[in-house]
Amino acid sequence: MIRAGIVGGTGYTGVELLRILALHPAVEVKAVTSRADAGQRVDKIYPSLRGYCDVLFSLPEIANLLDCDVVFFATPNGTAMTMATELLQHGIKVIDLSADFRIKDIAEWEHWYGMPHASPDLVAEAVYGLPELNRQAIQQARLIACPGCYPTAVQLGFLPLIAAGLIDTQHLIADVKSGVSGAGRKAELSSLMSEAGESFKAYAVAGHRHLPEIRQGLAGVAGRSVGLTFVPHLTPMIRGIHATLYATINTDTDCQRLFEEYYQNEFFVDVLPAGSHADTRHVRGSNRCQIAVHSPQGGNTVVVLSVIDNLVKGASGQAVQAMNLMFGFAENQGLQTIALYP
Amino acid sequence: MIRAGIVGGTGYTGVELLRILALHPAVEVKAVTSRADAGQRVDKIYPSLRGYCDVLFSLPEIANLLDCDVVFFATPNGTAMTMATELLQHGIKVIDLSADFRIKDIAEWEHWYGMPHASPDLVAEAVYGLPELNRQAIQQARLIACPGCYPTAVQLGFLPLIAAGLIDTQHLIADVKSGVSGAGRKAELSSLMSEAGESFKAYAVAGHRHLPEIRQGLAGVAGRSVGLTFVPHLTPMIRGIHATLYATINTDTDCQRLFEEYYQNEFFVDVLPAGSHADTRHVRGSNRCQIAVHSPQGGNTVVVLSVIDNLVKGASGQAVQAMNLMFGFAENQGLQTIALYP
Amino acid sequence: MIRAGIVGGTGYTGVELLRILALHPAVEVKAVTSRADAGQRVDKIYPSLRGYCDVLFSLPEIANLLDCDVVFFATPNGTAMTMATELLQHGIKVIDLSADFRIKDIAEWEHWYGMPHASPDLVAEAVYGLPELNRQAIQQARLIACPGCYPTAVQLGFLPLIAAGLIDTQHLIADVKSGVSGAGRKAELSSLMSEAGESFKAYAVAGHRHLPEIRQGLAGVAGRSVGLTFVPHLTPMIRGIHATLYATINTDTDCQRLFEEYYQNEFFVDVLPAGSHADTRHVRGSNRCQIAVHSPQGGNTVVVLSVIDNLVKGASGQAVQAMNLMFGFAENQGLQTIALYP
Amino acid sequence: MIRAGIVGGTGYTGVELLRILALHPAVEVKAVTSRADAGQRVDKIYPSLRGYCDVLFSLPEIANLLDCDVVFFATPNGTAMTMATELLQHGIKVIDLSADFRIKDIAEWEHWYGMPHASPDLVAEAVYGLPELNRQAIQQARLIACPGCYPTAVQLGFLPLIAAGLIDTQHLIADVKSGVSGAGRKAELSSLMSEAGESFKAYAVAGHRHLPEIRQGLAGVAGRSVGLTFVPHLTPMIRGIHATLYATINTDTDCQRLFEEYYQNEFFVDVLPAGSHADTRHVRGSNRCQIAVHSPQGGNTVVVLSVIDNLVKGASGQAVQAMNLMFGFAENQGLQTIALYP
Repeated sequence: MIRAGIVGGTGYTGVELLRILALHPAVEVKAVTSRADAGQRVDKIYPSLRGYCDVLFSLPEIANLLDCDVVFFATPNGTAMTMATELLQHGIKVIDLSADFRIKDIAEWEHWYGMPHASPDLVAEAVYGLPELNRQAIQQARLIACPGCYPTAVQLGFLPLIAAGLIDTQHLIADVKSGVSGAGRKAELSSLMSEAGESFKAYAVAGHRHLPEIRQGLAGVAGRSVGLTFVPHLTPMIRGIHATLYATINTDTDCQRLFEEYYQNEFFVDVLPAGSHADTRHVRGSNRCQIAVHSPQGGNTVVVLSVIDNLVKGASGQAVQAMNLMFGFAENQGLQTIALYP
Repeated sequence: MIRAGIVGGTGYTGVELLRILALHPAVEVKAVTSRADAGQRVDKIYPSLRGYCDVLFSLPEIANLLDCDVVFFATPNGTAMTMATELLQHGIKVIDLSADFRIKDIAEWEHWYGMPHASPDLVAEAVYGLPELNRQAIQQARLIACPGCYPTAVQLGFLPLIAAGLIDTQHLIADVKSGVSGAGRKAELSSLMSEAGESFKAYAVAGHRHLPEIRQGLAGVAGRSVGLTFVPHLTPMIRGIHATLYATINTDTDCQRLFEEYYQNEFFVDVLPAGSHADTRHVRGSNRCQIAVHSPQGGNTVVVLSVIDNLVKGASGQAVQAMNLMFGFAENQGLQTIALYP
Repeated sequence: MIRAGIVGGTGYTGVELLRILALHPAVEVKAVTSRADAGQRVDKIYPSLRGYCDVLFSLPEIANLLDCDVVFFATPNGTAMTMATELLQHGIKVIDLSADFRIKDIAEWEHWYGMPHASPDLVAEAVYGLPELNRQAIQQARLIACPGCYPTAVQLGFLPLIAAGLIDTQHLIADVKSGVSGAGRKAELSSLMSEAGESFKAYAVAGHRHLPEIRQGLAGVAGRSVGLTFVPHLTPMIRGIHATLYATINTDTDCQRLFEEYYQNEFFVDVLPAGSHADTRHVRGSNRCQIAVHSPQGGNTVVVLSVIDNLVKGASGQAVQAMNLMFGFAENQGLQTIALYP
Repeated sequence: MIRAGIVGGTGYTGVELLRILALHPAVEVKAVTSRADAGQRVDKIYPSLRGYCDVLFSLPEIANLLDCDVVFFATPNGTAMTMATELLQHGIKVIDLSADFRIKDIAEWEHWYGMPHASPDLVAEAVYGLPELNRQAIQQARLIACPGCYPTAVQLGFLPLIAAGLIDTQHLIADVKSGVSGAGRKAELSSLMSEAGESFKAYAVAGHRHLPEIRQGLAGVAGRSVGLTFVPHLTPMIRGIHATLYATINTDTDCQRLFEEYYQNEFFVDVLPAGSHADTRHVRGSNRCQIAVHSPQGGNTVVVLSVIDNLVKGASGQAVQAMNLMFGFAENQGLQTIALYP
């Protein structure tokens, strides 16, 4: 039984961590911080947790976390990097769901996130927490940088093709659609139901923060820099990401078989039968990525459909998957939930 | 470990049973029937179950169910009553999620359901499967008639007031709103997203089949017949029922305390703190009923807000709760899931 | 051709006024104010208006409105009451969509709205802008207090019954459901799509500001104070209000005929055929109220279903209807739009 | 004043034609056919039309249409091609919203639509009804083949680039998202709100019927065949199409200016300011296409965002636009409606 803390417990990734950890047989949640709600019961803000969580919100201070074996940061960007060093010094493992440790190139991080990095030294140590790519490193890590939601769906969709050297990595296209919970639990006009409901739009076409993260991950596999056009869209649903990926394929390959073999031992990546279409509905609430591969009209453009729940495999579920690896638990412990259909 | 069968596995209550039973530690699903899909893998129709269910659909015949300890009917009305006798004769317990055994008065059943009853003798034996009302009888039963979704939300909301004799039972009002999954997985114009989305309407105001069921249940507690106006509505969401109940209260009573005491030992009925408003979101995917009680403006009209997930506490979850009682398992085994928020 | 101004042009009722007035053949919109967006083109904020509106937002100052014949206030409560006097002195008619002039009892207004009233003297003069109730007074008025959205749906549903003296006015129940645009264009957590989507809840059961407004209106018709339980709910759609009204009827009356006769000359109130169920979809985007009347199971409870689009008949459309009356235009000019179905 | 008939009045494009034509100052709707509902009032099926349409549904027979100047076919594929010849012989103009006359290559049409063509001779005469491409031919035409919804959004987005010879037409990508009304008013499981709501998926990736139509249209402008990967998706909203188009651009061009100049005289194509993102919300209910152009990260991939309402500019609105041209009315008569926001 390990003790876990959550910094930033009032956002969607925070409460999703609570939903998962409250039923995890090897974890006890000891601390959940919230500056605004300190002193209140967690289940007063989140009635879905009544009966499953009797913790009070505490202030986000190191002293309130020292009793933990692991601390999750479900905070806005810029917080984890100011607290991680001290926690690590106390022997506490850190799993950061924000973007603070995702980008290895400090200058690039500072360019996209618009602030100086507070712990550039830790960036080198941080392990990018995509288990399907970095399993062994995660098992040894003290500090995990959990992937962003878009990068998870896009990388899992492109990985087999790039690892096999089958596609032109200079002209990749990722047309990705996200439910509105990806914007977080923030009071913003653009996230109102009257604004986001019953409508569909692209955003940040000129450049989105997840672009350098995806490029870095794919380049690591390709062994060289990649060219990627990434267009995120907002779709009128709450949970789910659907990535539609396009690449030019060099040779006549059985992509279906390639994907099935690449992911045959992965519990959380499910390659659908040939001819399938992935549907975010079938992964909602689960930690699974479902993938379908197509070569339309027999042409040389391969189309990959990759779906996840942005709050689970795209955030809190993947963070728990990393935690399981770090503590030697079964990788799927506490994560064997079936998607809520319909 | 018991063996379960599901007759009618392709509707929403059928697949919801599979979602719950696939992770139930004491149950193995041995048979799932579907006339239309017999021979196909269940997880081909329901990709959310991939990796959790390797059963093939079989034909809905007694011979395919004889290996079971319990058989659930997730069928349209009129099927369970033709198969239950033979299953019971083989010592198999039957849990019917349809309406076949809910109404004790055969003539009234035949009036509302428009067909002759095929097993009127079994109706008397069948136990109405609302554990909060009939726990002991359920433990002894061979045949369970699971309550309808509306009747579950409405009865749980009215019970404490009627049992305490505090309200005028001749002028009850139940204004109830349901998500569209309550209409089932049937290809009907009125359930299309273009018809049901972004709109709100009442239906069946003249009379709905759940009216006699609710009246029967409340009358049983009241000790006399009750007068009830029941207006169901369709609300543009998938899962959830919200009952808003109105009654005239006779005396100056602390309703909050009344409800808290009445349900203090119930795992699946959660009385919210005074002043709360129940929200279907906080029970979605869980087997819980959350209730809030109000006396607006200090008047003598008491308003009860009662929410459930129509497919869980309103159908498949409640059926498993009954199964747990019938087989001596912990009542909440396999049902400790937390609502999916957001 | 008259010249209109809109104070508070960036909320939903403001932009809805623009949608209607931009195509009104007798109106030219001369001024639209917004403190935050002053100097910007209106159609930059609202791309739906491109090509139909070339006005710039101006500051909300009297000087910017003096060129107008009529000024609409689509502002939060508390603004119109500080500017109306001066506009009226300049001979400009004022149509207030906020609540400032709705309640005749100043003390009651101050109790519910939590501020001192800035123009109590104007309250007496203001005409409550429900044309179906106050047509002649509106034609003569300088200052209109437009009804709230809930009060419009509820009053139109109860009026024929109360005017005919047929129901017990001491125990009225209004169970009303609103789409989320009713909360306005404000950055609030509770209006996020992740919070309001796919869920249903009641709110303000203890007391909502529209309660005294409805009571005042119904009392005016009844000739005595009325007893009303009013429970508003939030339903996961953008536009629309559905009021389900319950009353005990005294005599055996043909309510269908009563409603049809009461509203036979009203262009914007449409009594549906007997047995119908009103659907918010069929009035979305139109200025119409559709009503259905039922007496379930032949009992003495009459159930009225009354639907409107909260932003049109519940706000901006009704305001333009009042404007048409004030300026001697055809009452339905500029308002003959058909609901957007599906 | 011309007289119009609608064959197939009970689908979404049929009722949308009625919504538009009921308010068109130069058109009187004389006949609306429906085999299933013949003899019933149209406004009984569609309560939104009450007061605006007093026609009865008639049987879909030539005799019932002979009083018309123009007949619209809002029918499933395969109907218009059996009735058009006879109508044309009577001097009645025909506007077909189905796919019967869209594809010039009969063999290709028969391949994709799975039936023999009943009037191959008329295919050559039929004019493809995209006014922005074929205005003059439409003005002279007797028979119009209205474009499909996807083809409208995709072609309007690619046209300026292809006409200017700026992009590689062998590797075009169209990633397109549609609301569920595009599937029509048919009772199908996949269109249920429980199936289509709160979820996102691609479909028909292997090949969709609109692929040959788009290829034909673009090839006509390019002067040679084009290579196109077209992936349609279903997004959980009712109305709207968002096309995200990708092409490799050859030269360093000011695409923004190119688009603005290409469409400067088009009333129904609106090129948004540089840096904008098109949103289906801002065209919902209107006959407008809004377009935004981007060159992300300064690369040689141009990204075009093109949005329409699939039932208006993608179907019934465009059909009326063609009708206006055919009869010499102002092209935008009866079509100057502003999108419903929010």
